[in-house]
Order: sequence, then C-alpha cells, then structure tokens
Amino acid sequence: MSSGGLNMSRRIRRTPYTDRVEAVGVRGFSVVNHMLLPKAFQKSVEEDYFHLREHVQIWDVSVQRQVEIKGRDATQLIQWMTSRDISKATIGQCLYVPLVDEKGGMINDPVLLKLEEDRYWLSIADSDVLLWAKGLALGAGMEVDIDEPDVSPLAIQGPKAEDLMAKVFGEEIRQVKFFRYDRFNFKNTSQVIARSGYSKQGGFEIYLDDSTLGHDLWDTIWAAGQSFNISPGCPNLIERIEGGLFSYGNEMTRQNNPLECGMNDYVVLDGSIDFIGLNALRKIKADGITKQIRAILFDGSPCPTCSKPWPVMAGDNKNIKIGEVTSGIYSPRLEKNIGLSMIDRDYWSSGQKVTVQCADGLVREGVVSTLPLVESLI
Amino acid sequence: MSSGGLNMSRRIRRTPYTDRVEAVGVRGFSVVNHMLLPKAFQKSVEEDYFHLREHVQIWDVSVQRQVEIKGRDATQLIQWMTSRDISKATIGQCLYVPLVDEKGGMINDPVLLKLEEDRYWLSIADSDVLLWAKGLALGAGMEVDIDEPDVSPLAIQGPKAEDLMAKVFGEEIRQVKFFRYDRFNFKNTSQVIARSGYSKQGGFEIYLDDSTLGHDLWDTIWAAGQSFNISPGCPNLIERIEGGLFSYGNEMTRQNNPLECGMNDYVVLDGSIDFIGLNALRKIKADGITKQIRAILFDGSPCPTCSKPWPVMAGDNKNIKIGEVTSGIYSPRLEKNIGLSMIDRDYWSSGQKVTVQCADGLVREGVVSTLPLVESLI
Repeated sequence: MSSGGLNMSRRIRRTPYTDRVEAVGVRGFSVVNHMLLPKAFQKSVEEDYFHLREHVQIWDVSVQRQVEIKGRDATQLIQWMTSRDISKATIGQCLYVPLVDEKGGMINDPVLLKLEEDRYWLSIADSDVLLWAKGLALGAGMEVDIDEPDVSPLAIQGPKAEDLMAKVFGEEIRQVKFFRYDRFNFKNTSQVIARSGYSKQGGFEIYLDDSTLGHDLWDTIWAAGQSFNISPGCPNLIERIEGGLFSYGNEMTRQNNPLECGMNDYVVLDGSIDFIGLNALRKIKADGITKQIRAILFDGSPCPTCSKPWPVMAGDNKNIKIGEVTSGIYSPRLEKNIGLSMIDRDYWSSGQKVTVQCADGLVREGVVSTLPLVESLI
Repeated sequence: MSSGGLNMSRRIRRTPYTDRVEAVGVRGFSVVNHMLLPKAFQKSVEEDYFHLREHVQIWDVSVQRQVEIKGRDATQLIQWMTSRDISKATIGQCLYVPLVDEKGGMINDPVLLKLEEDRYWLSIADSDVLLWAKGLALGAGMEVDIDEPDVSPLAIQGPKAEDLMAKVFGEEIRQVKFFRYDRFNFKNTSQVIARSGYSKQGGFEIYLDDSTLGHDLWDTIWAAGQSFNISPGCPNLIERIEGGLFSYGNEMTRQNNPLECGMNDYVVLDGSIDFIGLNALRKIKADGITKQIRAILFDGSPCPTCSKPWPVMAGDNKNIKIGEVTSGIYSPRLEKNIGLSMIDRDYWSSGQKVTVQCADGLVREGVVSTLPLVESLI
C-alpha cells in the first residue's frame, strides 16, 4: 500500500494522538487537511478488516478538522454553501452536507454539527473549506466568525464500540442515536460525542475540544479497551468500499456534482432553499446526469493500489471506455477485487459486464453492482 | 527524514513526472496541494546539497499548482488578495505576493505571473488558494473565471542550469532575467519558462502547460543533462535554510502576518492600494510586531527532523521562551545546526544567545542570526 517514505515537517501537522499511534507501531500515514492520518499498523489491511468487523478499534481521525462558523449569519452562510436543506436541523444533530460550487462541483462532503442556533462545525474531508467559507463571507459581507478550533476527533469503531464507550463515559451513551451527538464528561470537561464514523461497523466519534487532553483520552480508552480486544486502526479500505463509503478526492472531485455521487436526497432543487450552484444543478438534473458512482466486482489476482483512476471498458468491447475505478482492493471475504467507480449512464446497470485496466497492466473481468456492495450481494 | 510509509490513493495526485521520478529511484515524498512532491532520492540530503551547489538538478515541483484568474475583474481581485502593489506588474514578470486574510494572516505566499492584462497565474504553496479566490469572487459578485489549469512546473536548478537550458531551448533563454519569464518552444508548443526556483543556486522553472508532454520534457532534459552531471532532486532543506527561503505551513501559517515574515517591501499600507487586511496590518504595524522570522545557528549533534516547532529559550534563562524553530537541519558545510525560527522582539537581535529544545530531548546552545544565513556569515 505504501510507496516510499513520507518526509515529515511542521507543515504536515502532527495530532494530539500522533505520539500514541507511533508508540503502538504505526507503519504508514496519509496526509489530509495538512495533517497526519495514520493508515497502517502492524496488522495487514486484511487482518485489520476482520478485526474491525469483530472487535473495536481506536482511530486518530484528527484530520477531520472542524470549520467553526458562528455569528448572526452563520445559518445563512451554511445554507448558501450546501444543496441540502438545513433549516430543520436541530442542536444535537449531525448532517451529511455536500458543499458545491457555482457549477455544482463538489467542494467537500463534510458532516455538519449544529452546536447552537448560530454556531456550527463542519467536520471536513480533504480541502480547505475554511478558505472557501471565509472567502464567501468576506466577499458577501456576512457577519460570521470562521476559524479552526482546537478539536481533534478520535473515532471508536466496531461492534464492541458501544460497550467500550459505556465503560468509559457511562451507560447514557447507549442512548445516543445514529448521527446524533450529546455531551459527555471527560476529566471535568464537556466533550461532544457522536454516534458516527467512517465505517459500517458502528461506533462513535469523540470531538475532543482540547488537544492537551489527547494523551489522556487515548490512554483512558486504550486501557478500558483491553478487555474488548481493542486495536489501533484507521479507515479500512476493504470495509469502506464494501460499505459504499466515499472519499472526497478519490471517488469525487470538484469535477463531479452531488447527483453523480448519488446524493439526490441531499440536493434540494424545488426552490425551497437557495444555494450556490442551484441553477447549475437544476440544469444538470434536467439534462440528466451522464455518469454516477457504482460499485464494481472484478476477478483475477488481487489488484494493486489505485493511485490514479483505472479505465473501465465495456465487457463486450474493450475499446469503449465506460468509466473509471477510483478506489479498489481485494476483499478476502468476498474473494474478489472490489472497487468504487464512476460509470457512464449507458453502462451503469447492475450486472453490466466490464473489464478493468489496472495499473499493473493486467486486464480483469468484472461486473457493475449497486451500492453498498455488501448489501447488494445479500 | 522519513517516518513510516506514505499510503497512496488517487486523492494524493500523481504528477506528469511521477513515473520518471520513480524510475530514477525516489525514496520519499511529501504531499503539497493534494499532490506528490518528491523529497528524497538515492543521495543523502547532504550529498544532494553539495550536488545542487555544483551541478544541475531536475525537480518535479508540479505541486506548485497554478490558480488561473482571468476576466474583467481579475486584476481587481488579485489586488484585493495581496498586500503588494501589483498595479505596475507587466506581462512577463513574476511577483512574490503575500496573500492575507482580514486579520492580516498569511493565506499563502505564491508567485504571481501576469500572462495577459486580465489573466494571471498564482503559483501557490500549500493551501487551497483556488477556494479562497473563488469564494471571494462569488461573494463579491466579481466577473472572473478561476480554475486550476493543467500546468505542471518542472524546475531546473543549480549553477549549470543555464547551460543545460540553453542546450535544450536555445541561447535566447540566457536573456531571461531573474523573476521574469518568456515563452519557448517545446515540441511545437509554446511554454512559459521563468528564471526562478526554490533554491539560491540559480535556475529556471518550466510551467509545462500540457501534462501529456511530461515524459517528453523530462526525458529531453534528462538526456541533455547527462553531460552536466544532472541528478534528480528536490528542494533541499539545508540549502533553503541557509538561503533563507521560507515554506508556507512551516515558517508561517495563517497565525502569522507578512510583517512577521519580514515581507515589509510587499506590504503597502499608505493607502495607494486597498486589500483584505489593510486595516488589520496598519494596526499591527502601528502597534509594532511582537516577533519576526530569524535564522538560528546552534551547536551539538545533528538535530532531528523538526516536525513540530522546537521551543527556543533565552540563553541566559532557560525558563524564558523567546520563540520557536520551525525548520532545522545540520549543515555539513557550516558544521552547525541551522534553523529558521520565529523569535520575540526583545530577543531577535543578531548574536542573541539562545538554547533550542529539540524533539530528541537534547538542549542545544545557539545564537540568533539575520537572514539569509549564508550571506550574514560572509
């Protein structure tokens, strides 16, 4: 999975947990939002995958930086930024909100946390939403304060996550519903904890609002987690592809719109809300989208790392390019290669036969599938 | 210099030259602007440093992404974004332009290329200036088109760079002055080539405006460079610290203003231009800045990699923190550790004795110096 070393500098920021992930043997990182994201530990991706599905893991996801927007015009600015209707959002709710530009292109796909009536966090993927929001507000003369608070999310993921979290934060945490958050005490501080996370195995994200508590929080959960067979982990590529979880910058970029990403439920075009890109998305919808994200199952030997999109060709004509695989890996459980891909309209039906031209030069035969992959196979 | 592997994915974009840098044995990367920056080859940093000072190197600096701003309001938008007066900029000129926010904080420190009266490239450091510029323009209703063109800079650096470039592009290239560019033919395309680069050894940057020519360009220069002892390279930490070249995200962040970075010549506060942050910077200047970037020379064993700022303490009182080292490395030529640092006003005089608390736990004695370090030592 890794190719060469990652050269460190202050610019690639360490997190409050980096000392700890180093202590438990991190083997590889990625860089997201100018910050280190642990991506490999002692276990192989396959071992990590099976562990995540059975036990509980602790993930340093501090790279999910918060963009805090507060002030009189905060709600107005955020609604302007997203195609999803946020007017009925309540304090305690988390909302997945596509952010789009004036052409309908994806700027980011953060989770929005409503903290107060005029105060929000956008928990972002890999692009400088802070600069986007500040630019918009400054240009339009909006009355908001926008900054990156000292918040460093730590994810606890896996089927044993709830038991572990109840042991640390009390039984009340079991009452927190999916994509809701509440506040819990940690060392006499009040911390936002949501039932959410970048896996389909269940779990929580602790939005630690004070980096000086990072070691304490890690150590507390690590100690409590020993009886649950806790392991250090990170978003698992096999699990996220099977679960149909997208990654901004991988599955979609600014060249894609949210309809291509299947986010129709979060694209309100009836005029009840106004946002950047409304007109562009109306036209795109009226014309009909030309491609959309699909899962793909393909045969052959385990595929290499997908570091640039692999061409997908029609199964019956290897000269017709019908799309691209954007993330791919071998699933030991499905015993097939699996991928996420952007596929042209005429070929996106489930069962469509394809060939995938991987970077190793091998051509693998496969089939288009609906998302999420695992449910579609059941 | 490297710690663990870098996990690859499409999100961390390859460049038109990545295949070639892999072929010549790249050992490590950094990530800048969501793209791979080669940072280590077969030579050690020290060997690379001496080679760069004597011969010529080819650097994949595609991460210097261009933000193209064109249209009726292009000049107005760019002037609004920078504290430097760009009204007298001419086509063919390159200008180092601090971009600041409403508090005077550094957003980026790109090089501006004026291509036409209403068309510019900002050749950026590591932050999404595209989102900042688009946000400002959209918010203010400016008539501009902003995008990232398919431009991938390749730097040719070192004392033999001019001879090599003349061999490839013709003798006229010798006429290009420092921080000027002209257009040269490559495979029947017209390419922008500037006399510039992220070293003090002289050289050029080719703004290759067509990624499909990447292999051709690399191979052409590589072949022509054999008689000049060409080597693959990258920005060299020893050379850039000695030369006093700053790195956005390392020496300064949004928490710093351009006056703290010693960019006084590029901060026009007399009212002849209006820009975001003018009022904030006037106040900062009137109050007097409280810290500024300085070089630092310090003794002891070669220092480790500076992946988070090292505290700098007063030489006569190790309890008084007077600043932070933001980049540091051992210089085999000066036979000392060298660093760039942000130092408090009361202690920033040349010759001030300090101690540096490196991440390896060792305390090293040193002295504050002016910039650039090498000239100040002559």
